[in-house]
Amino acid sequence: MDEIKLVHFGLGPIGIGLVKYVLQKNGIKIVGAVDIDKSKVGKDLGDLAVGRKIGVKITDDASSLLARTKPDIVLHSTGSYLKTVRPQLFDIIDARADLISTCEELSYPFLKHPDIAKELNARARRKGVTLLGTGVNPGFVMDTLVITSTGVCQDVRKISSFRIQDASVRRLPFQRKIGAGLTLTEFKAKVADGTIKHVGFAESIAMIAAALGWKLDRIEEKVDPKVAEKSVASEHIKVEPGQAAGVDQTAWGIRKGEKVITLNLQAYIGCPEPRETILIEGDPPIDLTIKGGIHGDIATAAVVVNCIPRVINAQPGLATMKDLPLPSAWFGHPKMFVKKN
Amino acid sequence: MDEIKLVHFGLGPIGIGLVKYVLQKNGIKIVGAVDIDKSKVGKDLGDLAVGRKIGVKITDDASSLLARTKPDIVLHSTGSYLKTVRPQLFDIIDARADLISTCEELSYPFLKHPDIAKELNARARRKGVTLLGTGVNPGFVMDTLVITSTGVCQDVRKISSFRIQDASVRRLPFQRKIGAGLTLTEFKAKVADGTIKHVGFAESIAMIAAALGWKLDRIEEKVDPKVAEKSVASEHIKVEPGQAAGVDQTAWGIRKGEKVITLNLQAYIGCPEPRETILIEGDPPIDLTIKGGIHGDIATAAVVVNCIPRVINAQPGLATMKDLPLPSAWFGHPKMFVKKN
Repeated sequence: MDEIKLVHFGLGPIGIGLVKYVLQKNGIKIVGAVDIDKSKVGKDLGDLAVGRKIGVKITDDASSLLARTKPDIVLHSTGSYLKTVRPQLFDIIDARADLISTCEELSYPFLKHPDIAKELNARARRKGVTLLGTGVNPGFVMDTLVITSTGVCQDVRKISSFRIQDASVRRLPFQRKIGAGLTLTEFKAKVADGTIKHVGFAESIAMIAAALGWKLDRIEEKVDPKVAEKSVASEHIKVEPGQAAGVDQTAWGIRKGEKVITLNLQAYIGCPEPRETILIEGDPPIDLTIKGGIHGDIATAAVVVNCIPRVINAQPGLATMKDLPLPSAWFGHPKMFVKKN
Repeated sequence: MDEIKLVHFGLGPIGIGLVKYVLQKNGIKIVGAVDIDKSKVGKDLGDLAVGRKIGVKITDDASSLLARTKPDIVLHSTGSYLKTVRPQLFDIIDARADLISTCEELSYPFLKHPDIAKELNARARRKGVTLLGTGVNPGFVMDTLVITSTGVCQDVRKISSFRIQDASVRRLPFQRKIGAGLTLTEFKAKVADGTIKHVGFAESIAMIAAALGWKLDRIEEKVDPKVAEKSVASEHIKVEPGQAAGVDQTAWGIRKGEKVITLNLQAYIGCPEPRETILIEGDPPIDLTIKGGIHGDIATAAVVVNCIPRVINAQPGLATMKDLPLPSAWFGHPKMFVKKN
C-alpha cells in the first residue's frame, strides 16, 4: 500500500473538520468528496475547506464516484440517525470501501437498532469491509475512556461521566443547537420536537454495559435547560437571566432498579469550569478529570482519522470502539501502522 | 468453554493479589499453583492467599504441573527481568497455555530485548498461544492510558506522565523497596546496585513512541531520593529530615534531541497529594488527573485478570496492551467475553 485512497462523504462542519485534518496527513490521497448541498456541488473541496484548490470536485452522485474512484476508505458525516444514513452506508459497503462514520447511532447500534446492526454487519462481512461509528462523543470521552478506566478495577458499582462545556468558544451553529439565548418556553418546544438533544448517550451507555457484562433494565434520558442566573454572552449570543444559557442533559443506565451508569452533558455560555470527569465507584475507585475539557470539533476529527489504520486492519464487519485496539494519534506514513496481509 | 482452567505461577505479593481476585470470579477454575519458595511448596494455595483451603497444592515443579493440568491460561508473576523469567515463559508456551505476566520487561520487550521478543513471538505462534506482559505500571497508567488519551489529538508535541504516590498506605516491602528511611548515602548505594529502581519506564516510553510512530534517539533515566524536609512516618517506618522518604525517578524519551516523553514516578512517605497526571502538549492539549491516584497492588491484579478474555481471544504471538482491544473490567461468566472459534 503506497497511499490510502479516501473519499469524504458529507461536508458539514464535522465533515470539513475531517478534510482539514486529512490534508495534514502523509500517505492519504483524497480521491473524492460527496455532499447533497447544491451550493457545494461542483466546487473544489480544497476551496471549501482550506481556501486553496486541491483538484477534487465535490459531487452529489455518491454511487458513481465510489464506483469510479474505488476508495480504500470513506469518512462519512451526514447525520446522527441510522435510519436516515442507512442507504448511504449500504452504498459505501457495496463499493467495498472501509468506512468510518460520525453517525452517533452507529457507534453502538445493537441496542436501539439491532436489525440494522445485523444487516450492516452481514453485508460488511460479505463485502470484506469494516465499518465503525466514532467521534469524541459518542466514541471517546463518555465510553472509550470510561471503559478503559475500568480496566484497573476489580469491582465497579457505579459509573458517572460528566462533560461540562463552555459553549462560548464553540461555533455559532453549536451555540444555537444547545438553545443558548432561548426563553424556557422556546427551549422546551425545541426539546419536544427533538431539535435540542445530544444523540449518543444511549449508545455510550449500552457500550459501557456490554463491556462490563451488565444487563440493563432500561435507559432513561432527560433534557433540561441550563438556566442563566446572570446575564452572560458569547461573541454571537447574549443570554438574559432566566433564559437558557445552554443544555443540561442526563441519561441513566438502570440495572436491577438502580442508576448504575449516569452520563451528564452540560454545554452552556458562561460555564466557569469546563471539564470532563469520570467517577467510578469501585475497587479501586477512580476520580478522573480532564481540566478544561476536550475541544469537541478538533477531537472528533482526530478520533475519526486516527482510527483509519485500526479500521483497515480490523476483521470485516461492524466494529465498535470497544473491540478495536486502543485509539492513538499516529504520525508519519500510514503504512507504518497498517498490517500487511 | 465451560470454565477457564488457570495456573498461578509465582506467589509473591503480586501473585497472591492475583489469586485473591481470581477467586472472586465465576467461570475460572484454579487448577494449580507454582512457587519455588520451599516454605510455600506443599501448602494449600487458599490457606496462603485467603485463609481457607481451596484444594490446590503449591508445587515447585512447573513442567509437571503444566503437563498434568493443561491450563488454558497461566498468570505469571515471578520477576521483572526477561532474561531471568525467559525459561519459565518457554515452559508455559510449550505447555500450549496462554500467558499473562507482570514481568515489567515483557510489557514492551522489542526495544531492550529484541532477540528474546522475537524468540517468544515465534514460539508462541508455533504453539498457538498468546502472551502479554501487563500490570498497572507498566501496562496501564503510564502507557495504555497515555496512548488512549492521544486518540483525541490531531497533533502531539510532548507528553508527560506523573505518578505521585503516598507510600504510607502501601505494604512494608513496597516502602522498603523505594528506600524510605534510608540515609542518602544508603539510598545512593541501593540505586547503584539496582535495588531501588522502578522497572518499566523504558518499556512504557517505547510503547508510546511506537503507537505514535515516533522514532526515538534514546531513552534516559535517573533515580533520585525524595528527601524528607520534615519528619514523616508510616505505620512501619519513621523518616527523619534529610533522609530519603522514598524515590523520585524520571525517564525521558528523546527525539531529535528533545525530551518529547517524560515519565516521573514519585513514591514516598508523607506525599500530600497523590495523583496520576497526564499532560499532552498537542492539539487539543490534554490535562488529565486521577485524584488520589490508582492503588497499585489492586490495580495490577485487576489489569491482569481483566485482560484474560482479551488474551484468549487474541491471535497467537506476543501481544502488547497497545494492540489488544480496550482494557475493561468484566463481570459474570467469562464465556460472555470469549469469542467462539
